[in-house]
Amino acid sequence: MIEHRHSFRVMYPDTDQMGTVHHSNYVKYYETAHWQLFRSIGISYKSVEDAGYMLPVIRMNFHFRKTIGYDTLLTVHTTLKAIKGARIWFTHKLYNEQNVLVNETELAFMKKENWKPCPAPDMVLNAIKNV
Amino acid sequence: MIEHRHSFRVMYPDTDQMGTVHHSNYVKYYETAHWQLFRSIGISYKSVEDAGYMLPVIRMNFHFRKTIGYDTLLTVHTTLKAIKGARIWFTHKLYNEQNVLVNETELAFMKKENWKPCPAPDMVLNAIKNV
Amino acid sequence: MIEHRHSFRVMYPDTDQMGTVHHSNYVKYYETAHWQLFRSIGISYKSVEDAGYMLPVIRMNFHFRKTIGYDTLLTVHTTLKAIKGARIWFTHKLYNEQNVLVNETELAFMKKENWKPCPAPDMVLNAIKNV
Amino acid sequence: MIEHRHSFRVMYPDTDQMGTVHHSNYVKYYETAHWQLFRSIGISYKSVEDAGYMLPVIRMNFHFRKTIGYDTLLTVHTTLKAIKGARIWFTHKLYNEQNVLVNETELAFMKKENWKPCPAPDMVLNAIKNV
Repeated sequence: MIEHRHSFRVMYPDTDQMGTVHHSNYVKYYETAHWQLFRSIGISYKSVEDAGYMLPVIRMNFHFRKTIGYDTLLTVHTTLKAIKGARIWFTHKLYNEQNVLVNETELAFMKKENWKPCPAPDMVLNAIKNV
Repeated sequence: MIEHRHSFRVMYPDTDQMGTVHHSNYVKYYETAHWQLFRSIGISYKSVEDAGYMLPVIRMNFHFRKTIGYDTLLTVHTTLKAIKGARIWFTHKLYNEQNVLVNETELAFMKKENWKPCPAPDMVLNAIKNV
Repeated sequence: MIEHRHSFRVMYPDTDQMGTVHHSNYVKYYETAHWQLFRSIGISYKSVEDAGYMLPVIRMNFHFRKTIGYDTLLTVHTTLKAIKGARIWFTHKLYNEQNVLVNETELAFMKKENWKPCPAPDMVLNAIKNV
Repeated sequence: MIEHRHSFRVMYPDTDQMGTVHHSNYVKYYETAHWQLFRSIGISYKSVEDAGYMLPVIRMNFHFRKTIGYDTLLTVHTTLKAIKGARIWFTHKLYNEQNVLVNETELAFMKKENWKPCPAPDMVLNAIKNV
């Protein structure tokens, strides 16, 4: 289990006319957060794609507990929970000062050449082993 | 149970460098689809907000079964499944030619003045009754 | 000179907390509009890319005269003004009921294999000739 | 003349199927950059809105000289060039390692209550004077 924290401020175009973050942006916040976790263990997601693998998202579940406004300083706590065959699971918890959201995302490794699921590449498994 | 179909083509900025639709866009596709359902029964979501109500999204679950490419002609089949107190449930099925995705989204009515949950306004209940 | 009109309603995620369309969305509106012009003369932009060409945007100029709100019914009047060597020029005028905006966009044809500018492909020139 | 540098990495959803940054994102990059300049002189854009002012964008000009890929580390050099009556001018230069882009953006101050142009508020003028 590897953990990582990623902080950022809510940008203006992420708001909508309710005056809060439009829910489509959470998808982007969590994606950026799990690639930052990857970077923290020495592999960029870019290098994974350059090596011929892709990680499309398979499942995403969101429960929006509180609304979030422009310029809020947010922190995503990302946990790499498990990696099993072609699948990898991340959990994201989004905090302002209090607990705001808990989400889980499941991704699958695929070969870039044929879009078929494949086991996690060694470059990823090794980076995880060496944490 | 009210049903509605909304068709559109995938726009270029919705793609990412995998050559497929970035998953954040599904959120927008479904949102547009359920407001189109509302419009089809005679109430625009704008009129709901103008009357002092909002419908923030509470839960969203996604299972991405197949990838979708640029310029694909998609159809969202939206079902208004239930409306109970402050909550409303929509189910979205996204089709190309075959079944591609099934999703469910839960929203809650809130008063604009105080951001508190409130029963569905009469303008919505009546529009549904009159279908 | 070829003209085309493309109409659509402003979607909720296109708004920001000013209660108007965030200016990044105009870029997407015009892009969709000029590919709709292409489609109207018998070539989809997808077929242009599939044939090995790309049309990255080179210049864009925006003058925002009036703000636009959620759910507004907009019409983009797109004019294919000129095509010369690798370059193509579109003008976009965005209307609600009155004139709202005038913009011009310049694009360049590039070979997909080497990202070098190249003359407009015959499939495009022919489609234009046959209008 | 006040200058500021804002660095960030290109996120995955900012790419499109050309494998480069979709041009709608530059709008967001520059907006974030000029609010970071504001923050660096002690006023957040949020505090400007909370005080009853807004800064909608009036003009934007883009000349895209080079394409930019996923995960590139970018730096926006923003210059607050002038502030005159209700108008404020920013210049943005976007760098990777070499000079990549030069852009200029013009914004106008407006009263939130009536959407009318108004002189720059004292809180902004003072923050600039005190740099």
